[in-house]
Amino acid sequence: MTKFARNQWYVAAYGREVGRELLGRTVLNEPIAFYRTETDDTGAGGQVVALADRCVHRRFPLSASRLDGDRVVCGYHGFTYDTTGTCVYVPGQKRIPRTARVSSYPVVEQDSFIWVWIGDPALADATTIPRAPHLADSGKWTTVGGMEPIDGDYGLLVDNLMDLSHETYLHGGYIGTPEVAETPMTTEVDEGAGVVRVSRHMNDADCPPFYARSTGIEGRITRWQDIEYHAPCLYLLHSRIAPKGVLPNPDGSDPNAFHVEITYAITPSTDSHVYDFWAVSRDFGLGDEEMSAFLHDFNREVVMQDVNALNLLQKTLDTEPAGYQELSINIDTGGLAARRILARLAAEGGQPAAAPAAPPVPAAR
Amino acid sequence: MTKFARNQWYVAAYGREVGRELLGRTVLNEPIAFYRTETDDTGAGGQVVALADRCVHRRFPLSASRLDGDRVVCGYHGFTYDTTGTCVYVPGQKRIPRTARVSSYPVVEQDSFIWVWIGDPALADATTIPRAPHLADSGKWTTVGGMEPIDGDYGLLVDNLMDLSHETYLHGGYIGTPEVAETPMTTEVDEGAGVVRVSRHMNDADCPPFYARSTGIEGRITRWQDIEYHAPCLYLLHSRIAPKGVLPNPDGSDPNAFHVEITYAITPSTDSHVYDFWAVSRDFGLGDEEMSAFLHDFNREVVMQDVNALNLLQKTLDTEPAGYQELSINIDTGGLAARRILARLAAEGGQPAAAPAAPPVPAAR
Amino acid sequence: MTKFARNQWYVAAYGREVGRELLGRTVLNEPIAFYRTETDDTGAGGQVVALADRCVHRRFPLSASRLDGDRVVCGYHGFTYDTTGTCVYVPGQKRIPRTARVSSYPVVEQDSFIWVWIGDPALADATTIPRAPHLADSGKWTTVGGMEPIDGDYGLLVDNLMDLSHETYLHGGYIGTPEVAETPMTTEVDEGAGVVRVSRHMNDADCPPFYARSTGIEGRITRWQDIEYHAPCLYLLHSRIAPKGVLPNPDGSDPNAFHVEITYAITPSTDSHVYDFWAVSRDFGLGDEEMSAFLHDFNREVVMQDVNALNLLQKTLDTEPAGYQELSINIDTGGLAARRILARLAAEGGQPAAAPAAPPVPAAR
Repeated sequence: MTKFARNQWYVAAYGREVGRELLGRTVLNEPIAFYRTETDDTGAGGQVVALADRCVHRRFPLSASRLDGDRVVCGYHGFTYDTTGTCVYVPGQKRIPRTARVSSYPVVEQDSFIWVWIGDPALADATTIPRAPHLADSGKWTTVGGMEPIDGDYGLLVDNLMDLSHETYLHGGYIGTPEVAETPMTTEVDEGAGVVRVSRHMNDADCPPFYARSTGIEGRITRWQDIEYHAPCLYLLHSRIAPKGVLPNPDGSDPNAFHVEITYAITPSTDSHVYDFWAVSRDFGLGDEEMSAFLHDFNREVVMQDVNALNLLQKTLDTEPAGYQELSINIDTGGLAARRILARLAAEGGQPAAAPAAPPVPAAR
Repeated sequence: MTKFARNQWYVAAYGREVGRELLGRTVLNEPIAFYRTETDDTGAGGQVVALADRCVHRRFPLSASRLDGDRVVCGYHGFTYDTTGTCVYVPGQKRIPRTARVSSYPVVEQDSFIWVWIGDPALADATTIPRAPHLADSGKWTTVGGMEPIDGDYGLLVDNLMDLSHETYLHGGYIGTPEVAETPMTTEVDEGAGVVRVSRHMNDADCPPFYARSTGIEGRITRWQDIEYHAPCLYLLHSRIAPKGVLPNPDGSDPNAFHVEITYAITPSTDSHVYDFWAVSRDFGLGDEEMSAFLHDFNREVVMQDVNALNLLQKTLDTEPAGYQELSINIDTGGLAARRILARLAAEGGQPAAAPAAPPVPAAR
Repeated sequence: MTKFARNQWYVAAYGREVGRELLGRTVLNEPIAFYRTETDDTGAGGQVVALADRCVHRRFPLSASRLDGDRVVCGYHGFTYDTTGTCVYVPGQKRIPRTARVSSYPVVEQDSFIWVWIGDPALADATTIPRAPHLADSGKWTTVGGMEPIDGDYGLLVDNLMDLSHETYLHGGYIGTPEVAETPMTTEVDEGAGVVRVSRHMNDADCPPFYARSTGIEGRITRWQDIEYHAPCLYLLHSRIAPKGVLPNPDGSDPNAFHVEITYAITPSTDSHVYDFWAVSRDFGLGDEEMSAFLHDFNREVVMQDVNALNLLQKTLDTEPAGYQELSINIDTGGLAARRILARLAAEGGQPAAAPAAPPVPAAR
């Protein structure tokens, strides 16, 4: 199992998923309830709140509860918490035990994602969250996306995304062509920053249906795949598609190519579940709803091919004898670098702190 | 996990559930097959038999077998048992091994329930079974009821029923109103008898739909809830509903109130399953089938709210780190008393005896 | 749990199940992918290949992959294997790691079955495979059959088949009559050859529907059941049905009886799953499709009665306390002999060798 890296930011949801109903998500085995505060007439409010998803009383999940204004009212006995996690009401008595509070989590809404900090809150620094600005820039980019849970170790998804040669075999007829598997990659690793870059530039390739139908290019293409993985969570694939022979200008401008930003957020949920957030942003056909529908549905099929393969792979690994072996080759360079960085981050992030619940109070005096 | 109290009577079924087809129920992890003997022309017979639900031969469940008169014929190889559990036939040979017998359990049919004794049969004393006579007194009471299994520790159901402040939050719009959570309770504990009494008398309360529709009262009510828990299995809630200000007479008579007896039998099945028997008996609208249908269906919805909440709570607890904490307040006084009594009864009841199966016999001499 | 006997042949499939699509079967906890090579114009080819069902790269199951001619192309990243298990292609590089190979298994197609050798390949001797020639002799026999998986220890199926007295109780109205349970059996054990023979000759018996409808006999019958179990996998039941009093001639010829060969192959899949291959071959009504359909469907119902009973029995045993007891009688003589032989074969077969995967190779030089 791939160890979890604590003291890190993770994507817990799209901003659009969090509103005035409680949303439960488990991140790094920590159950969290998310909601958004009320908005007033001036537009103030609407902040995202993240509280530990367990009532201090009997551990009922707060995500199965309801909101009363900006407060969470436990659905079992009505223990009520404010946005800081402090209990402000208990049934049947006026005195509220001093220790009645649940943890709140640092949370940042940025680039359409809700990022949550898992680990020591004192170390949370929002400026270290990696950026995916195209997701929130609807003037230049049109984005479709979704999230699919996978019943597997999150490391399987990192492996999957770092080595796109699988597109040829798992996604043939969708996004894969023979050239993806055949073209060697270059890999750059910035160990300090925890960033892995894998590039594969195909200058004479088949155009797979995903791009043929969206760009309208007929014939062979120049296809560049530049991966940028910001461990542990954010994965960007800069995809450049152009007719064969069409290259960027010397000044870097690139008006005759189609650009697609493929974004993944890889968020470990439990030891055997991962949230696979995916988005496809394009700089052409902006606002074209038919094209958006095609790219959403077609890419979701591709994502589900991965989901099904990784679900199967995890089931398979679960039956393997301990200490089973793998055989790595050149295509695995990026994935192995990612594993090394994740292992280092996990070691640095340390162990979970003691459970956040309040100490017990003798009952009913 | 809440420990099991052995050397106790438990409700295994309603009498109406046990007939001429074998019924399998597991009580305190002991699988038991129930059936009723034949009735002759004089009306004699019809006793309930409870046998260990495992054939001595290959452990096939007798509850998946069939009856031949008052004998149980194993559905696999035909080993046949009489009502005492003695094997009276085996296939292919005349000699029946001396040790071929299954345990039989002391069983009592009373107040519409089938009570079974788990523990040392020599200690079974039917006079100690707590009573719920309203269940069988159709002259004074009309009763509806059912049973719902819960995928949880039986202690969760005891907690649930001992603290009715949850009615306000989990059963709002059904049986809960704000006054239930707000009104303090009084608790009396008879440690020796293993009885906990929790009372909540609301003298100016909203009338919830459950009572408004059945009693026809309009406006505010006097609502008394008097719980009587006979650990480990029987729970009685004496519910008194009257228009606001209407109280019992000094002599105890109470002609202007509506009375409802809510009965639960809480029977641990396995470590993670509990049978939740429930019944609602009323002293008004006797025999009114429409009212019976309403009360049955409405109360079953309430029971299912509990079932769903406890199933969720158990799943939640199963993912909590060991040693998770609770925070108890005044409303938990009755529940904590019940836990103490159950712990004492479990300690007194001791461990299960050796498995009831016969010692093995060398085969085929 | 019944231990596995390695260094043995097991039926993995019917020949008709293996073709040009990969078939995954797990035998003695070893996952295996089966396929058949291409046939050329001369009819050459069509051999069955059995490879370890795990790609050396990331352990993706090859049975979820596709064929390219006689090669298996992993469905994840395209690692490609020839019929010996040698890797002949990897993506993105020309050099194929020397250690890139998966195990291949000795495999024999005989009597309509695909037999696979589990254990040390050097010990595989095809001449030791027990025969069931009636299955492939369509001139003398017409056969129907199928395979049903059971969620249980394979020993439960051996027990089941060695003692047919259960026909009376589990299969009453299908193949069981009172005489089966009542008639004593004779048992012969050839410990050296690992063969158990159990015979039950009923000379005045009811004719069960299975035989009444297929043979047309009215009235009582002579019914002989001669079991021949070749441990661990092959079970033959020679069934002879004739009108009461009709016996074979002194020279052994038997023109006035109906003969049915009931064949089972009992193949342990995992510790808690077994493949139950079954076939019914008759020497009458040859080629009669209506009779074949009847015998197939009727016998499948009988098989499913066993499957359901053994699934239930395994679930039951899973909840029994450790060290639960059985009580064996005369009918169990054959089954107990089979258990002894299986225990000896398991002890002789030894433990699985080290995992067959190749040693890891440092990646990406």
